[in-house]
Order: sequence, then structure tokens, then C-alpha cells
Amino acid sequence: MIVIKVCFVLIFLISFSKTDNCNLPNELVTEIRGYKDTVNKIIDAVTNGKYKGQTYKELATFVDKFGARQAGSDVLEDSIDYLLELLPSKGYDLESVHGENVTIPHWVRGVESGQMIKPRMADIPVLALGGSISTKETGIEADAVVFRNFDELEAQSASVQGKIVIFNNDFKSYGISVAYRSQGPIRAAKYGAVAVLVRSVTPFSMNTLHTGQTQYDKNVTKIPAASITVEHAHLFQRYQDRNETIRLKLILQSTLLNDSLSRNTVAEVKGSKTPEKVVLVSGHLDSWDVGVGAMDDGGGAFISWYSLVVLKGLGLRPKRTVRSVLWTAEENGLIGVQEYNNAHEHELDNFVFVMESDEGTFTPLGLNYVAGTTGGCILEEILKLLSPINAATAKRSEEGGVGSDITIWKDVIPTGSLLNDNGKYFWFHHTNADTMDVLDPNALDKATALWASVAYVIADLNDDFPRSFARADGNIQTVIPFFLLYLSIMLVSVLL
Amino acid sequence: MIVIKVCFVLIFLISFSKTDNCNLPNELVTEIRGYKDTVNKIIDAVTNGKYKGQTYKELATFVDKFGARQAGSDVLEDSIDYLLELLPSKGYDLESVHGENVTIPHWVRGVESGQMIKPRMADIPVLALGGSISTKETGIEADAVVFRNFDELEAQSASVQGKIVIFNNDFKSYGISVAYRSQGPIRAAKYGAVAVLVRSVTPFSMNTLHTGQTQYDKNVTKIPAASITVEHAHLFQRYQDRNETIRLKLILQSTLLNDSLSRNTVAEVKGSKTPEKVVLVSGHLDSWDVGVGAMDDGGGAFISWYSLVVLKGLGLRPKRTVRSVLWTAEENGLIGVQEYNNAHEHELDNFVFVMESDEGTFTPLGLNYVAGTTGGCILEEILKLLSPINAATAKRSEEGGVGSDITIWKDVIPTGSLLNDNGKYFWFHHTNADTMDVLDPNALDKATALWASVAYVIADLNDDFPRSFARADGNIQTVIPFFLLYLSIMLVSVLL
Repeated sequence: MIVIKVCFVLIFLISFSKTDNCNLPNELVTEIRGYKDTVNKIIDAVTNGKYKGQTYKELATFVDKFGARQAGSDVLEDSIDYLLELLPSKGYDLESVHGENVTIPHWVRGVESGQMIKPRMADIPVLALGGSISTKETGIEADAVVFRNFDELEAQSASVQGKIVIFNNDFKSYGISVAYRSQGPIRAAKYGAVAVLVRSVTPFSMNTLHTGQTQYDKNVTKIPAASITVEHAHLFQRYQDRNETIRLKLILQSTLLNDSLSRNTVAEVKGSKTPEKVVLVSGHLDSWDVGVGAMDDGGGAFISWYSLVVLKGLGLRPKRTVRSVLWTAEENGLIGVQEYNNAHEHELDNFVFVMESDEGTFTPLGLNYVAGTTGGCILEEILKLLSPINAATAKRSEEGGVGSDITIWKDVIPTGSLLNDNGKYFWFHHTNADTMDVLDPNALDKATALWASVAYVIADLNDDFPRSFARADGNIQTVIPFFLLYLSIMLVSVLL
Repeated sequence: MIVIKVCFVLIFLISFSKTDNCNLPNELVTEIRGYKDTVNKIIDAVTNGKYKGQTYKELATFVDKFGARQAGSDVLEDSIDYLLELLPSKGYDLESVHGENVTIPHWVRGVESGQMIKPRMADIPVLALGGSISTKETGIEADAVVFRNFDELEAQSASVQGKIVIFNNDFKSYGISVAYRSQGPIRAAKYGAVAVLVRSVTPFSMNTLHTGQTQYDKNVTKIPAASITVEHAHLFQRYQDRNETIRLKLILQSTLLNDSLSRNTVAEVKGSKTPEKVVLVSGHLDSWDVGVGAMDDGGGAFISWYSLVVLKGLGLRPKRTVRSVLWTAEENGLIGVQEYNNAHEHELDNFVFVMESDEGTFTPLGLNYVAGTTGGCILEEILKLLSPINAATAKRSEEGGVGSDITIWKDVIPTGSLLNDNGKYFWFHHTNADTMDVLDPNALDKATALWASVAYVIADLNDDFPRSFARADGNIQTVIPFFLLYLSIMLVSVLL
């Protein structure tokens, strides 16, 4: 009896584990495995051969030359011009290199300062959030009240009128804490706050300020918004917990200039057989105005165009086109990709796979994807080819979207994002510490090798990458019979 | 034959390992082990009982109230007054609480700014080194030249005249790299440099500036000196490696005011039998003007006076006096301890053991010491009592001194310093990131427990802690017979 029941449980467990297994046609598996030599050639050229260290070197030259590249700035446009000249030049030979116009907002940081007046005089480092309105020139002086989360705010909303609201939300994930940066000004202004200070969204701080876009609601008074360091958020919390009055003076000046013109930067290796079909690799070229945007997203942008250089240089022209797009004005709300989406509506059907790296280019581990079960199985098989650099993981996205810009296509085009060892990504995100020091030449090489390999194989397969998104597109059929089997066995088990 | 030779080698190895073993008199070992219950009582009271979390709480209240406490500032003196009032007050009841005057230098940071003019315009964060002279008010503008070390400077000294010298020394240890901070201005000025920028002395940076005292030579022209971030040192190195001209503008304003009066802050638990004999526990109260000196050295200072509170509160009055001294003006060159040494010359013979914590109060592991071999054996035995908090390591100093202030006594009084898990100490050292966030309440509790326990036991032992310093004070006798045995065995071995 017990043996039989154990068997049933085992069958049940196996049936569930089975549902995630792949049943790709043998010929497709064979076809993908046939790319082993090609992928090894790419890996070798990038991690040992002529391209070794080049992605880092190109990126360092670029960010050292231009520094931060904020949307709306001349520097961003100069940096785009530089790439439009560099990419088609000798040795790179990229094709169809051009910019595609995008109208973007132009918000500029001005004079900023924070002072604590009570309980003691001290300078408080502040960094306006992107899009923040200004205080009057002489600043705002007010008492401050600290909330750990929106629940505390709601519970004590009567205490907010005329105050500076400080959000001191413990970092559990970016997804959770970033709500205080984006929604904080609206939530606090509703109850009459005169300004809002948001604890920098990061799991680790060395007195580090993190900016990032904030939002206003047209029905709620706009109030100035800045980030403070984790350390100062803790300090203010301690003062409040001791019932000490916190009084602050803030000067936050900024200007919202007229919209200006920027460009998405495009380059290609044209497909040999169906050039109208496209595998798109991407990152964004704009950055915040602090740091130099080496990590966010210089790394993602540079592995994208440089993987095309590698394919071209190794004479690897796939059947479909591999296109690199370096988005503009991602930081202000995915502006570049939206304009691109509108302009390219007619050819979206031809986008077989879209990739973006905007979560770090630390040591690569594989791909995050939204590509349905069959697509996931294909990616799994392709990524096995990246085992030589230990980047063979295909990870289905649990959040319904991967990348940043390319999330707008999550329901219409299969998408993939660089899975990498990015545990420290948010340490540096939107800070002055986002510099070349965050990046490692070897990690960047591996990322370029992965990017080039995946893009090449998908662009060269006989059949188009399948368009399916449901997590269980292949699962339901598999689960149902197993589940029925399980049910009947249980029934028998009860009767025994 | 082979077996015999292997035996000889084993005997040889054992003989050498033997030389570090302890041969304390049995009654001393028994005496020390007799403190087990007392030490457990201390540990329990501090890590679970009424003192749990109190060291952190006291320190947070203190640094939140005063912030940075630079030598010469009113704030430092206010913070000393606060402690002079707090320590003898109800619940603390410390004895002989008083300040002892010290004349200290008073250097004050003024306006500071750095600009890169070539190869591109950008702000460069700079932080004057302590004691730096000023540039003229309008600043210095000059080309810059980068050296990885003094050897490179010497080899290319002809290129230095009229330039700003940048030292970009890779951090291998504080001891090595700090030479560029302390000696850099002298070494560069010798060859005609007009200013010096020193890469911050740290193994890790998030765009972090580290200050610290620098030095001048009366025979060499004084030039302004500041730190730059690791990231900017790397940036300048890359520019130079690409043969790009680096041109900088520096404004560094500072003032050397008249010497002023500060105090070492003293408190005691008087000895019950020989109160003139002293075990001294210490840390320094002054800090640099950046950050709030929570780690350097608030932690060390607060575990010192708080360990006396614990002894007093638990009714543990040892035979000898336990004295807490919170040094002033450590950061400017161990000023407070020197004055103390002069004023207390008459009683130095009575100092049986001197402790300082100035290398972090992260999770404690035990003690570093300079105390000779017998002293080391005693410390080893005492620290076994700290096994319940995994802080039983007694580590002989390899550098000939432990602590900072108390190194002046390394050849005359046995000294010990808190051995702790301080791998990240130099991340925060002398920076704006030296805040309460660096410290952990539980680690501080354990440090207080260790501090109180070691001080108590040494102050209460029947015999004075032995005064011996030679590393091999007990070794020579042990090594010689083993070595002779080895020689004779080798001789026999050759004859066999």
C-alpha cells in the first residue's frame, strides 16, 4: 500500500516537473547544435582574440570623451554624431548607420542645496529627482515628517500639511521602493506637503545620492522633489523617533526647457536571405546627468553595436538582419523607443526577436526572456552554446517584461535581456558612482560574445523564432493528461 | 631509512610549532579560567540583558547631536562637555570624570573646487588633505601629469615643473598607499609641482573622497594638496595613456588658525586594592570634518567608556583601576596622547595594560597585541573566555604597534587593539560615508563585552600583567634545545 502511494506521489511530482521540459523537434535541436563551432569562434575572437578588451576600450574612450549624456543636452547629440561617424568607418563597417529623430523633453538641474536647521545645523546632500519643479529661489523652509511607507503616510496624513515629507522606505527591491521616487510627490502633495525628500533607492550607500524620473499628477499640486542618502533618511528617522523637531531648508532649482530633437542610433548587419526580418539588439545611450552613464547604459549600448562589429569582422552574415538600436531618452520615460515603435509599426511583424541590456553588463549568466514556452526551449538550446563562458542560463521572466525600453513589446514580440551577475547594479544606478570603474573588461567581452552569438543564431535559423507569450503555451497540453492520470490514480488509491 | 627521515622532518616541524606554545604556570591558568562566570555575566548583560543595544544607542544620540568633531572646533569641545556631564550622571556613575587640557592645532577647510578644462570641461570632486595650504583665491590652473608611484615620479621628474602632480597609486594596503597622502606634497614639490592630487586611499570607491593629514617639509616649498576619487585617478590615467593633455583648475582654500585648547576625556572605575595601577581603555573622540566620525572613532571611544558603565553597573570593581581615556586631536598627529604621555610620565610605570580601538568596531574577533610571548599567552588564555561570542583570537602584531594613539607606548607598556572583522574599514575611513550606518548594534555590543571583560580580568589578576615586548622573550629558550636536537638528528641522518 505505502509503496503504491509513494509511487503515485512520485508520478505526480514527475508529471509536474515534466511540464517544464522541452520537446523541440529533433531537427531543430540538431540545427541549433550545428552552430557550436560558429559560437565558439565568436567566443574565442571576443574573449581571447582580436576583439579582446575592445568593448571596454571603446566604451571608456566614449564616456571619457563625453561624460554624462542627459536627454536634451548638446553632449548627448555630440556623442550620437560621434557614433554615427564611428560605426560605418573602416574596421567597423556597419551598415545602414543612421539616426532616427525623436522629440524629447529637456529638463535641466540647477542650483541645489539642503540644510538642516533643527535639531542641529548641517548641510544635507540633496539631488533633485528628474522632472522636479523648482522651489522659489530663496528656497523652502519647513518642519519635516518621516514616513517609512505609504501606509504610515495615510495613517498620519493629518500631520503633513505645510511640512516637508521624507520617505524612508527600506529597500527590499527596486520594484517596491522606486514607487516612493515616482509616486512620492503626488502622494505627499495630496495631504498638503510643500516638498518631498525620498530616500535613495538602493540596497547599499556610501553617502550616495540616486536620482531618477519622478511623476506628477495634473490633478494634484506639484511640489519639489529630491533624493537624500540612505544615511540621512536613517538620521531623520532617529530624530523623529526621539521626538526631536526636524527643520530643513531646501533650494531646488531646475528648468524645463522646450522639447528638443534627439535620435535613436541605428546600425545593421543586413540579412543575406530575408533582410526584412530583424533581430534587434539594443541599449540606451542617454544617461542621467550624474556620473557618466558607463553602467546605465553605456555597457548595454556598447555590447549591442560592438556585437555587430564582431559578426561583420568574422564574416558572419546571418539570413535575417541583425540591427543595433541605441535608444535615446530612456531615462525620461522610454521616449526613444516609443517614437521608434510608432515609426516602425509597419515592420513590427518582421521583428523576430528583440534584445536589450539595461540591467548591467557584469559577468553574463545568460538571458531573461518573455518568449513563451517553445521560445524558451529554443533559447535554452541556444544558450547551451554559451556554456564555454558559463552563460547558459535561460530564465523565463517572472514579471511579464524584460529590459526597459523593449518592455513595450512584451505582448507582441519575443524579448530577451542580458541575465548577469548584477547584484550590485542598484548600488551605482543613477549616481555619481556610475563610472567605468563599475565595469570589467572581461565581463564586457563575455557579454558581447553572448549578445553576438544569440543574435546571430536566432537571425540565422531556418524558421522564424516562434511568436508565443503565454507562460504555458506548451504547458497546458502537457499538464492536462498528467493531471487526469494523477486524478485517476488517486481514485484508485482511495479504493485500494 | 625513509621512515626515519620523515620522522626527523616531523620532529623538526613539531619543534618549531612548539615554540609558539604557552607554558603559563598552572595556577595562573586556573586563576584566569576562574573568571569564566564573571565574563559570561558581562557577555550576557551586554548582548542579551539590560545593556543590549545601549552602546549603539548612546553613540547614535551623540553623533546625531554633534556630527563631525574636528580638532579645534567648538563642536568637539561641546561634545566633550556633554560627556563630562553624562559619564558621572545617574545610571552611569563613572568615577574621576574630568578633562585634561591639550593644546591642539586648528586647521579649517574653506571653499574647494576642481574643474577639468582639458580634455573636456567637467567638475572634479576634490577634498583638501588635512593641513593643506591654500591656493590663491582665484585658484591654480595648470596641466597635470599622472604617476602610479614614486618610482614613476623619480623616473620622469623632469616633466613635473609647473604641473599639478596626480598620484594614482593602486591600493595594496593602507600602510603603502597612505605614503602618497602624507609624503606626496613634499615629493612632488621637490621637482617643481604647483599642487598635488592624491588618489583616495581605499580599496573601494563609490565616487568617494577620503581626506587625512598630510605633511610638509620645512626645506621644501609647500604646495596645496587634495584627494580625488579612485574613479577620477583612473580617468586621468586613461587620458594620459592616450596622450591627451589634462588641464585642471583647482581652488583649495583653508585656514590655519591659532592653536586652541581641547581635552582628553577621562573616567574611571577605581581599583579596590591597588587603585594606582591602571588598565587603560581608549579611543579618540575627535574626527575629520567629513562624515560624523561614527566609525572613526566614535565606536572605539564609546565601547571604552561604556565598558566602564557595564563594570560599574554589574558591581565589578577590579583590584586595579580601569581608566577610559577618549583622546583628542588624534587625526592631526596623535596630539592628545602625546600631551597625556608627558603629563602622566610619573605614573606610566603603573600602566599595566593599555588598550585602544581605532580600527573599527565591526564584529569583534579578539585582540591584536604587542605584549611579548608570556603576555601573549596570558591574553590567549583570557580571550578563551570570549569564546561564547567567537572573539577568542589573540593575534601578535606583525607591525610592531597596535592601535593609533597608543603606539607611542609600544616599547614601554603592553598594548592591545580590538581585532575585528574590519575588511571594509578603509571604504569609509575619513569620508562622508563614515556614519552610524557603518556600525551594527550587535557588533558594538560584542565589542563592549570584550573590552569590559579583558580590561576587568587584567585589572583584577593577582599579579601585574608582565612587561615584556620582544617577540621571542619566551621563544629563544624553547627554540635552542629543539634546534640543537634537530642538528644532531640531521647529523645522525647523514651518517645513517
